[in-house]
Amino acid sequence: MKDKPKKPQKLKARLPRGLEDRGPAAINATREMLEKIRAVYELYGFEPVETPAFEYTDALGKFLPDQDRPNEGVFSFQDDDEQWISLRYDLTAPLARYVAENFDTLPKPYRSYRFGWVFRNEKPGPGRFRQFMQFDADTVGSASPAADAEMCMMAADTMEALGIPRGSYVVKVNNRKVLDGVREALGIADDGRWLTVMRAIDKLDRLGIEGVKQLLGDGRKDESGDFTKGAGLKPADIVLVTSVVEQVDDDSEKIAQIDIRLRDSKIGQQGREELEEIERFVRTSGYGEDRVKIDPSVVRGLEYYTGPVYEVELLLDTKDEKGRPVRFGSVGGGGRYDGLVSRFRGEPVPATGFSIGVSRLQAALTLLGKVDTRAEFGPVVVTVFDRDRVADYQKFVAALRSENIRAELYLGNPRNMGNQLKYADRRNSPCVIIQGSDEKARGEVQIKDLIEGAKAAAAIASNQEWRESRPAQFSCKENEIVAKVREVLARHDVKWG
Amino acid sequence: MKDKPKKPQKLKARLPRGLEDRGPAAINATREMLEKIRAVYELYGFEPVETPAFEYTDALGKFLPDQDRPNEGVFSFQDDDEQWISLRYDLTAPLARYVAENFDTLPKPYRSYRFGWVFRNEKPGPGRFRQFMQFDADTVGSASPAADAEMCMMAADTMEALGIPRGSYVVKVNNRKVLDGVREALGIADDGRWLTVMRAIDKLDRLGIEGVKQLLGDGRKDESGDFTKGAGLKPADIVLVTSVVEQVDDDSEKIAQIDIRLRDSKIGQQGREELEEIERFVRTSGYGEDRVKIDPSVVRGLEYYTGPVYEVELLLDTKDEKGRPVRFGSVGGGGRYDGLVSRFRGEPVPATGFSIGVSRLQAALTLLGKVDTRAEFGPVVVTVFDRDRVADYQKFVAALRSENIRAELYLGNPRNMGNQLKYADRRNSPCVIIQGSDEKARGEVQIKDLIEGAKAAAAIASNQEWRESRPAQFSCKENEIVAKVREVLARHDVKWG
Repeated sequence: MKDKPKKPQKLKARLPRGLEDRGPAAINATREMLEKIRAVYELYGFEPVETPAFEYTDALGKFLPDQDRPNEGVFSFQDDDEQWISLRYDLTAPLARYVAENFDTLPKPYRSYRFGWVFRNEKPGPGRFRQFMQFDADTVGSASPAADAEMCMMAADTMEALGIPRGSYVVKVNNRKVLDGVREALGIADDGRWLTVMRAIDKLDRLGIEGVKQLLGDGRKDESGDFTKGAGLKPADIVLVTSVVEQVDDDSEKIAQIDIRLRDSKIGQQGREELEEIERFVRTSGYGEDRVKIDPSVVRGLEYYTGPVYEVELLLDTKDEKGRPVRFGSVGGGGRYDGLVSRFRGEPVPATGFSIGVSRLQAALTLLGKVDTRAEFGPVVVTVFDRDRVADYQKFVAALRSENIRAELYLGNPRNMGNQLKYADRRNSPCVIIQGSDEKARGEVQIKDLIEGAKAAAAIASNQEWRESRPAQFSCKENEIVAKVREVLARHDVKWG
Repeated sequence: MKDKPKKPQKLKARLPRGLEDRGPAAINATREMLEKIRAVYELYGFEPVETPAFEYTDALGKFLPDQDRPNEGVFSFQDDDEQWISLRYDLTAPLARYVAENFDTLPKPYRSYRFGWVFRNEKPGPGRFRQFMQFDADTVGSASPAADAEMCMMAADTMEALGIPRGSYVVKVNNRKVLDGVREALGIADDGRWLTVMRAIDKLDRLGIEGVKQLLGDGRKDESGDFTKGAGLKPADIVLVTSVVEQVDDDSEKIAQIDIRLRDSKIGQQGREELEEIERFVRTSGYGEDRVKIDPSVVRGLEYYTGPVYEVELLLDTKDEKGRPVRFGSVGGGGRYDGLVSRFRGEPVPATGFSIGVSRLQAALTLLGKVDTRAEFGPVVVTVFDRDRVADYQKFVAALRSENIRAELYLGNPRNMGNQLKYADRRNSPCVIIQGSDEKARGEVQIKDLIEGAKAAAAIASNQEWRESRPAQFSCKENEIVAKVREVLARHDVKWG
């Protein structure tokens, strides 16, 4: 009140980079997705819990992949009391804080789910946003591989609940301990060179086994001529790595290979045993290799994983708006993070969780045609013919609304009926109500069926013919409005979400 | 991968001040509220749109009430390119940016709604959080008081849709122009003194007309003895102010008073005319003074309002957990902000909007007993008697889930059946499934009805009697599990959201 808004001074309306606004179709699609995912998670006995968007920076930890500078990757600021606060970059670190803070009052194992926006202070790119939505489920307090197996089965069920047919997705399972075993077998330290090996493994899907071999050896030149330096492994070591990570048709064979190659690594053998246990569990539960498959090339970038890791991949080669094929990789994943809650508790607290990238999965479902992107029907628009009779028109609106029919009074400048009809078109309204003085005198209104009208307009040749036939427009008594509008809605099967 | 998680070092798990975690009951209640509000807004013809959590700081503007230092009240940080970005403090300023940015492609008037978290960097207090949820509806591109009237009617309908009975809420309407008219009539500048007058008017609900008179005059000493300096108005001026803002039973009488007192103020008369138009519109639409009422003591803190302002007040004297009466003031409000979109466009763009404080309204509904705070039933728990047979137990789980019955395998350490039953109790499970070796040999399972059991336990005197009668536990064939569990659920009317 003190500082009145300054004199209008033209600001530029623009969204900061890497963010997006969302319209009705995207919002409705998200809501439907969230409901379907929620139904699966609840069927599995998970209960909701939500944490706020902020946490103390130290509570979040630094687990983002490939962040060299401290604090990179997150949005942070200093609070009044000089403590650093950050926006959450995922939903797992905040859950770990929540569980640690409420440890004594929570049932254990603690099975919970949550969805929400997360924030990454990264360089945005196509399809890469600085705010995006995740939907997570976690089981804290169970060290059993059965808990990991359950996450994989739930991921598979979720994909099918979202309309992705069996065969078009696969849940790939690995174990960080198997990768640790590979490192032990190579006899190299957990340093930059190992990171190069991991990055090479991570590219198996994209580059194939030959590309990975090059990146494990001297290096690789890509199509553009750019050269990526390799890890410099000896040929025998390259064979060791590729024989573990290479994809094979049969999971038992894969497990046997891991067993042979990592014979002398205790951690590697532990990883192999856990993978075997997960495999047995999902198979006896009826999930075949078409749904849950062992794949030691799965790395998962986040640093907090300690055991089994899993990833949901969409297998269809989808096309983008321009008809170019789009490879849709991972739409979700997760793993075991036994160290994350312990950071607060000073005692071991095993945990495993699964996270769906909702925004990313929604993009995939849209490309797959599993999302209804048609514009929803707008409300019935009651037009204003005579501005002194706005209150009368509002009564028609009220009558429609009281019968649960979406309706509104035209609130723009009513001087031009054409603008009002254009507005109704823009809103995708099924019909409009018009009452001029003649109709008023007869106690009638005109109902203009815009859906029928559009069809008729497409079929009628001349303007003259159009004006004469006045298709899809009829009159009715004022007290018949609701019934007649209902007929129009029924005729075109108009349903509102 | 490079920086492995450091050795466990005990961090304190704590939430920053002014934030809260939310459990199942609160989350489910919010979801139900949002659905009910959404249904009303869509019935009124509003369509969804969402903006991200961040905006450029200059795009948000500085419109928070009572913020003396620049940038106070919002969470801000500098982006890579050195531009300042802030978390949104409401949903109106981002909408103004959105409309300005997409002006040419939007239907006009543009009617939209959205809900989401907003953030205020303020001193937290009881019930006062730094992150809270709002649910807004806005009409941009209509200068008509009918648009404001519609907001008021929609607010009333929303309260009733949420279960608040007529008579327990009121939508109070004022017009900033009436207040501007009062300032003109007083002949004082729009400075600190006027701010003191506005603050005094804003306290009418809390202090009554006598308290307001003191604050308009020399000042007021409250019960604790603290003295608040007044605006120092002359007695005649105090009469002028109070005669305008004082509440009276009849809205026409109120309008007449405004007319008389602000006879010489053009802006005041404009405000009065708009109020009259709103009043006429809501009355002919069937909304009486018990639902929408003119009240010139409504100020609304935000600086961007330019015309009609409105506020939903809950009238019930509710009680808090300790039985003390709680006065629940405003749970939502809004007004006309004709200058907000124009800041970007350099042309007049009239707009009006209404915002519900979802978090605050939910607290109110909880106190009013309109929110179901009972714990939801948990899943059916299949216990682990013999850890080698986990896969068998998992099959029971799968059978239940495939029939849409929430179920889970106990994933904790299975050594102790007592712990498993305690877990099921903690989860509020309706029943548990147990299969020991004897049952296995007979192809049977035991079903323990925990709801019946709890009732029986309350009625049975001795442990001995309890053990002998084994109430609420029965056996059935493995292939009858689904049917028998269904019977238990039906008996206790267990329904899941």
